[in-house]
Amino acid sequence: MTTPSPDCVTAQTTVDSVEAAEALASAVIDRGLAACVQVSEIRSFYRWKGEVHDDPEWLLTFKTSAEAAAGTLRDHISQHHPYDEPEYIVQPIINGSEDYLQWIRESVHHQ
Amino acid sequence: MTTPSPDCVTAQTTVDSVEAAEALASAVIDRGLAACVQVSEIRSFYRWKGEVHDDPEWLLTFKTSAEAAAGTLRDHISQHHPYDEPEYIVQPIINGSEDYLQWIRESVHHQ
Amino acid sequence: MTTPSPDCVTAQTTVDSVEAAEALASAVIDRGLAACVQVSEIRSFYRWKGEVHDDPEWLLTFKTSAEAAAGTLRDHISQHHPYDEPEYIVQPIINGSEDYLQWIRESVHHQ
Repeated sequence: MTTPSPDCVTAQTTVDSVEAAEALASAVIDRGLAACVQVSEIRSFYRWKGEVHDDPEWLLTFKTSAEAAAGTLRDHISQHHPYDEPEYIVQPIINGSEDYLQWIRESVHHQ
Repeated sequence: MTTPSPDCVTAQTTVDSVEAAEALASAVIDRGLAACVQVSEIRSFYRWKGEVHDDPEWLLTFKTSAEAAAGTLRDHISQHHPYDEPEYIVQPIINGSEDYLQWIRESVHHQ
Repeated sequence: MTTPSPDCVTAQTTVDSVEAAEALASAVIDRGLAACVQVSEIRSFYRWKGEVHDDPEWLLTFKTSAEAAAGTLRDHISQHHPYDEPEYIVQPIINGSEDYLQWIRESVHHQ
């Protein structure tokens, strides 16, 4: 069931409304840029103009291919994200259920 | 306090009810397949039979050894998960508190 | 927009009250030990004195530099965390938005 798989990754971004989370997650799935998107509520602490801010946000975690994360998914987020400077990070999947990883590969379109 | 530790990892799966999350998390701890399981509520967006779905799920994040993640924990999830094709991914821990990493190693049984 | 970036990481710890989460997150941002801290509610399952426990906790995920994660941030958590043996793990960021990664680097002080 398990195969080392450097070609699948998780990617993450955040938005400031549940509507933006729903829209971005649905569009990413609809366009085949990730196999699934997991959305959860968080509180984000960060410094802005010298002050520590504490804002509600929605975290989107994409399960996708390394190729899409460095290409089509990244570009879509860059073009459609409501923020000017959105968070966007990519972390490696080093192992997993082969069936699940294969589902990720087959769900993601790279063009 | 910090030691590079490629032998500890996080693993993740999802279920569709809080009861299933409680049962799976408790069984995994009870059998020594992970040191701890963190459960959180998410919304999962994915494509199924041509439609974009948006379903509530519970995310389980296991802190365990790389060996268990590729063996006993993987097998337990494969045999006891309520889904036919569950998510199961493994991501590396590259550093951390040595005491905490040692607690993970000592908490996990590999047979 | 994307640059492989082994010098940025995520780090995680947990606390047992929202007040402790707020205090720790704010102090970490105020001292420039991370660029942002994402706080979410979880349930933690773990074994303690032979019993399986299921406790509410708050997960803090720091976006920071590999250097701070192995130094100033780790030390701050070691000194200021309410637990004797807190969780503290570090996971790699292998790619991301160059602007966002640069913001992490510029937000984190290493002395």
